[in-house]
Amino acid sequence: MIPVVLASENPRGAEKWLALIQQHFPDLQAHIFSPDAGGPRTDVRAAIVWRPPAALFERYPALDLVFNMGAGVDAILRQPGMRESARIIRLEDAGLANTMIEYVVYYVSSITRGFAAYEQHKAERRWQPEIHEPVQAWPVGVMGTGVIGARIANTLSQLGYRVSGWSRSGKPIDGVTGYAGQEQLGAFLAASRILINVLPLTDATRNILDRQLLSQLPAGAVLINIGRGEHLVEEALIPLLDSGQLSRAVLDVTRTEPLPADHPFWMHPAITLTPHISGPTNHLLALAQIRAKLNDAMQGKPITGEVTRSNGY
Amino acid sequence: MIPVVLASENPRGAEKWLALIQQHFPDLQAHIFSPDAGGPRTDVRAAIVWRPPAALFERYPALDLVFNMGAGVDAILRQPGMRESARIIRLEDAGLANTMIEYVVYYVSSITRGFAAYEQHKAERRWQPEIHEPVQAWPVGVMGTGVIGARIANTLSQLGYRVSGWSRSGKPIDGVTGYAGQEQLGAFLAASRILINVLPLTDATRNILDRQLLSQLPAGAVLINIGRGEHLVEEALIPLLDSGQLSRAVLDVTRTEPLPADHPFWMHPAITLTPHISGPTNHLLALAQIRAKLNDAMQGKPITGEVTRSNGY
Repeated sequence: MIPVVLASENPRGAEKWLALIQQHFPDLQAHIFSPDAGGPRTDVRAAIVWRPPAALFERYPALDLVFNMGAGVDAILRQPGMRESARIIRLEDAGLANTMIEYVVYYVSSITRGFAAYEQHKAERRWQPEIHEPVQAWPVGVMGTGVIGARIANTLSQLGYRVSGWSRSGKPIDGVTGYAGQEQLGAFLAASRILINVLPLTDATRNILDRQLLSQLPAGAVLINIGRGEHLVEEALIPLLDSGQLSRAVLDVTRTEPLPADHPFWMHPAITLTPHISGPTNHLLALAQIRAKLNDAMQGKPITGEVTRSNGY
Repeated sequence: MIPVVLASENPRGAEKWLALIQQHFPDLQAHIFSPDAGGPRTDVRAAIVWRPPAALFERYPALDLVFNMGAGVDAILRQPGMRESARIIRLEDAGLANTMIEYVVYYVSSITRGFAAYEQHKAERRWQPEIHEPVQAWPVGVMGTGVIGARIANTLSQLGYRVSGWSRSGKPIDGVTGYAGQEQLGAFLAASRILINVLPLTDATRNILDRQLLSQLPAGAVLINIGRGEHLVEEALIPLLDSGQLSRAVLDVTRTEPLPADHPFWMHPAITLTPHISGPTNHLLALAQIRAKLNDAMQGKPITGEVTRSNGY
């Protein structure tokens, strides 16, 4: 039996993991973190977390394997109190890429094919094909080409879109034009009529989607943000939409979530908002992945998805 | 120079092909069929057509290569007057599969992910994730596994859906459970919560989507018809929707197109209608494919996509 502590910002989430673990992974001895329980526990070395409280690391000072129940680890890295030597392991795909691809294809094709118009036509009993440009006229740029970004880029490429990818290292992806680093960012943006942000949130990427960057896209470009709300300088967006530099923004993430009811994004007709649902985790797949990695780590084998703290992802 | 006659139900379509041929394929000596022009022309052996008039085959009695500007050849096969020995060549993919995949992913994910709800939520300034079942709970069946059906099935499978394919021969497709022929149709239908029709229209498939067949789907199933309007017995649909046997129908094709304004489909809330736009042809890709096949055929080489008249596709 391997003791594991579960800690989530959302208590119902931790309860769901616990039930799945008890049903499917009985060799894990899991319990949910409670801030009110007794003194330090040094017998627990592994945790499964989503946006955990700082108190977790005080109460469990011996944690050296911290599995994140998601791809973005920015919330963990913000927490003080975790030992320098503790390894943070992010979730790799586990169904995330598929749901994010669906989200992207849905919104990209709603833009390039104008499907929404047919709902209006139906109400008017009007049989009228919309004229639209071929997909080749809608070059797409994917910022962030990790596991998920690479699959999104590859899928759009298979659907006939011209796709560019941008990342720090310029990792090559089948069928995708790669751009690397700051010096190729301008060329990447100029080639992207639809910009999809899938970057991890780090000190280097926070506020990256600002007026200066978004102004380098072709006029009338579309922004799709499925990264983090903190990537976008929110004050910059509405002026860019109103000037026509951007024609539409599809935002799955915002700086404050839930988005406050008085936020101007709610009222802007060119902004589509979804409540951080582009990539909901499939918890059973996620736990199966974590279980396998935990086993490997305890046997001293190498595991993938380990976070390099200096990179922030 | 190879003389080629162009004939389309839509005169603007033929003009568009002519302009593209003149610009990109100058070795083709193309002209548009006119019913008012002079006597028979026996020097023209190749035609590019879309729903051509019967008069074409009277005026051009020597046609022996008839290239269809689309995948479905039912309209050509209905025409009398074509020589028995004339070869009919259907368009293979040429961007069709990509646009049809986009259409399918858009409507499948709108059903399984409930994206439309977020438009309503935005109007109400409400940040509320919708609860939805995982994609594994939405097994999809694809009827018709030719070039296009196979790619649709394969793409949905890659996105995590459980996918079955049904065809006369039961052609195997990567990641897809194959069903063949009449004897396996019942098992295929029972396993399909979303049924996507991509069959060719033949005497064997006309009216195949009838009350008896659709009643073998699980209760609350969804029908997506991107084949031909004549596949569906239209009188059967509304009772199945009203009884709950079907929860939704997405129809890109209808028996009469444009759909008459007094047709009951317009008014039914569980029917989504699009005006035969799921697979618009990319004419430049199509002409490049036709040009290559014409060249091969004239050199006596084998070509793909040739229609077997007895099969009807």
